[in-house]
Amino acid sequence: MFNPKMETLPREEIEKIQLGRLRKTIAFLKNSKSMLKEKIKDIHPEDIKSLDDLKYLPFTTKDDLRDGYPFGHIAVDPSDCVRMHMSSGTTGIPVLNLMTKNDVAQWGEIMARCLACAGLTSKDRLQIMPSFGLFNGGFGFHYGAETLGCFIVPAGAGRTLMQLKLIKDLGVTAIGAIASYPARLIEVAQENGFDFRKTNLRVAILGAETWSDEYRKRIEEMMGVKTFDIIGMTETGGVGLGIDCEARKGIHVWEDHYIIEIVHPETGEVLPLGEEGEIVVTTLTREGLPLIRYRTRDISKIISYEPCECGRTHVRIDRIKGRTDDMLKVKGVNFYPSQIEAILLKYKGLAPYYQLVIENVKGKDEMTIIVEKTDGGLTDQEMERLNLELYDFLGFRSKIQIVPEGTIQRVPGKAVRVIDKRKK
Amino acid sequence: MFNPKMETLPREEIEKIQLGRLRKTIAFLKNSKSMLKEKIKDIHPEDIKSLDDLKYLPFTTKDDLRDGYPFGHIAVDPSDCVRMHMSSGTTGIPVLNLMTKNDVAQWGEIMARCLACAGLTSKDRLQIMPSFGLFNGGFGFHYGAETLGCFIVPAGAGRTLMQLKLIKDLGVTAIGAIASYPARLIEVAQENGFDFRKTNLRVAILGAETWSDEYRKRIEEMMGVKTFDIIGMTETGGVGLGIDCEARKGIHVWEDHYIIEIVHPETGEVLPLGEEGEIVVTTLTREGLPLIRYRTRDISKIISYEPCECGRTHVRIDRIKGRTDDMLKVKGVNFYPSQIEAILLKYKGLAPYYQLVIENVKGKDEMTIIVEKTDGGLTDQEMERLNLELYDFLGFRSKIQIVPEGTIQRVPGKAVRVIDKRKK
Repeated sequence: MFNPKMETLPREEIEKIQLGRLRKTIAFLKNSKSMLKEKIKDIHPEDIKSLDDLKYLPFTTKDDLRDGYPFGHIAVDPSDCVRMHMSSGTTGIPVLNLMTKNDVAQWGEIMARCLACAGLTSKDRLQIMPSFGLFNGGFGFHYGAETLGCFIVPAGAGRTLMQLKLIKDLGVTAIGAIASYPARLIEVAQENGFDFRKTNLRVAILGAETWSDEYRKRIEEMMGVKTFDIIGMTETGGVGLGIDCEARKGIHVWEDHYIIEIVHPETGEVLPLGEEGEIVVTTLTREGLPLIRYRTRDISKIISYEPCECGRTHVRIDRIKGRTDDMLKVKGVNFYPSQIEAILLKYKGLAPYYQLVIENVKGKDEMTIIVEKTDGGLTDQEMERLNLELYDFLGFRSKIQIVPEGTIQRVPGKAVRVIDKRKK
Repeated sequence: MFNPKMETLPREEIEKIQLGRLRKTIAFLKNSKSMLKEKIKDIHPEDIKSLDDLKYLPFTTKDDLRDGYPFGHIAVDPSDCVRMHMSSGTTGIPVLNLMTKNDVAQWGEIMARCLACAGLTSKDRLQIMPSFGLFNGGFGFHYGAETLGCFIVPAGAGRTLMQLKLIKDLGVTAIGAIASYPARLIEVAQENGFDFRKTNLRVAILGAETWSDEYRKRIEEMMGVKTFDIIGMTETGGVGLGIDCEARKGIHVWEDHYIIEIVHPETGEVLPLGEEGEIVVTTLTREGLPLIRYRTRDISKIISYEPCECGRTHVRIDRIKGRTDDMLKVKGVNFYPSQIEAILLKYKGLAPYYQLVIENVKGKDEMTIIVEKTDGGLTDQEMERLNLELYDFLGFRSKIQIVPEGTIQRVPGKAVRVIDKRKK
């Protein structure tokens, strides 16, 4: 563990810290330059008698942060900030997160805990594959590795053959990457007779996308590594909000820095342990962009508040199933692309490259699943079983097109899984 | 100044520090894991009686560093390093520079001095436009800004329209970029009615390529900024070896960290003040890759050892004219692309986008200069004068093709100035 004292606090200690820091964050926000303070103008820190009172506070949404562009939602003067990151903004006004020196240190701390949770020490060699820049992924791993003191290979995105060469030549032991990228690493490795088992690589820390357990199994088998699922987003201060451990019994969220709630995506009602809903994050130690009850749109559930096998005591949530924005509704059925992925990847003959094409044909929804084959593809029998499994899950027939390897375009950054032609 | 005490040391103090650190570097290298120690196995630190004895030490070349790939030329164990950068390696085996924690701090210090020399303080907002990753440019600016404490907009390379948007929306006061990139910024600004004078931008720190005084004038006029010429390379520890100041009387090289010699590119003989030759760098404070007399291949001359108007006392060298690798020999005449650029950009009707195409036609060299026009292009009279000027400089006739704006491909990273078809 990077910070054993904080990572193993008894629950009552965690909650005491959370209550104190929540009050402090409310006071800080109320006295700040942020326009978000309007939302809590009638609330006083001393009104919060227990963590249970959190549910009475208003939510903060992505639109609230967009409305602040560029700096209206930032609590401190930009001149007192040293860094910034930005959400991709492909769908409109971007969201900026400005960071003070303390925020950068906080990020380094939570990311160092994540790296240590994935088994890394200062002796490891970490190749960082998400891009460095406005996207928070590259720098998040950078600050974590800096705090942990391990050796950084700052590869950034792309140049897959070079990435493989560096893994081998530099004795790299761990990689950090966008979840879909290992599929590309494996593909290029196969094309070039590259054997991961002849390298020192043993850990892959993956995030920024929803990825299924079946994809996970596939990656681990083919690369001979242990994978770890890391979460976080620009708004909350970047990647590093939480990660799973070797026990693989949920994602540990660093509760001395964040409060997690799960709420009903439509009603906003707080849901009890075990029920699936939207993750809501309250930051406890951020200065540039302190957030009260931020609606992340990510779907998960709380698994347990009990200590984990690994000894960490912080809350564990389920791996993220999808984002409310990613949820598809086809023929009236709701589902996430990752759920289709989980079905496809049960078949060894199918590759982790797929696209769901949805169109409206004569007033009716139709979905075609395009998926690449590996080696032999599927037998007729397997094809029949796959059809049945998909029908069992979806409740309607979808067309399956099995295409040769390399058919679906490889893109830098996040994978394009859905082509919804109905939206035009 | 970022470090007034060190930046204004009297010459005898500088030389005392240099002598001590040179001996220390030799001792460090001799006791290290680096294969480069073989070169100095018969030399002992106490043999170096004065800085004048440096000339008896053997050179280190880029090939020496390539021979060490990956870690043979590194002085410390990779496990004791925290970072690395890599030269582009487009022409063969890449060169790695591994950095200890102290090396990263040293880099932050020299880059902070450079930023301060360009007039930046902790209150500035610096947009970093070179890519972050294996290339040292992005991270060099990052560490300097971190050390100086100013606000970083980590834009990285590309997305020019977004770069402009960020400059404006975030009140950016300074940019760091590859020297040819402002030409693209200006071009996209014009296409989009973007006015640099309506922003807070006042400083552009440019490097990684040779750029002429005429290009400089053009950029300053069109962007309304003051430009600064920054030098450095992966091998010496990255960008930040030196920079010019407002007085614009040469590039200040941080002599408490580096010793600069100018040598004859062929004989290796040390040249006196004012004579043009190859820059040779000896590092005085680097741990991962300490270098004795590294042949940089960059051509310059020493301008003065006297204090500058700005108060800094470190040696000043001329702006870099080109690299020995970049030197062209056409019809027996030697010249650098930047010298042609300087002639072209005297004409307001020509744009800073040009290519020199050299071919062998029937056994004879021929050079075509392809250059884009801006607005009206050249009058017949100007065209005649340009032809004459080029002939005066080159001593042979070259063909000039003036093409419309946007003809020459815009590339991310360093510009492609020369297409030498003779090499095939």
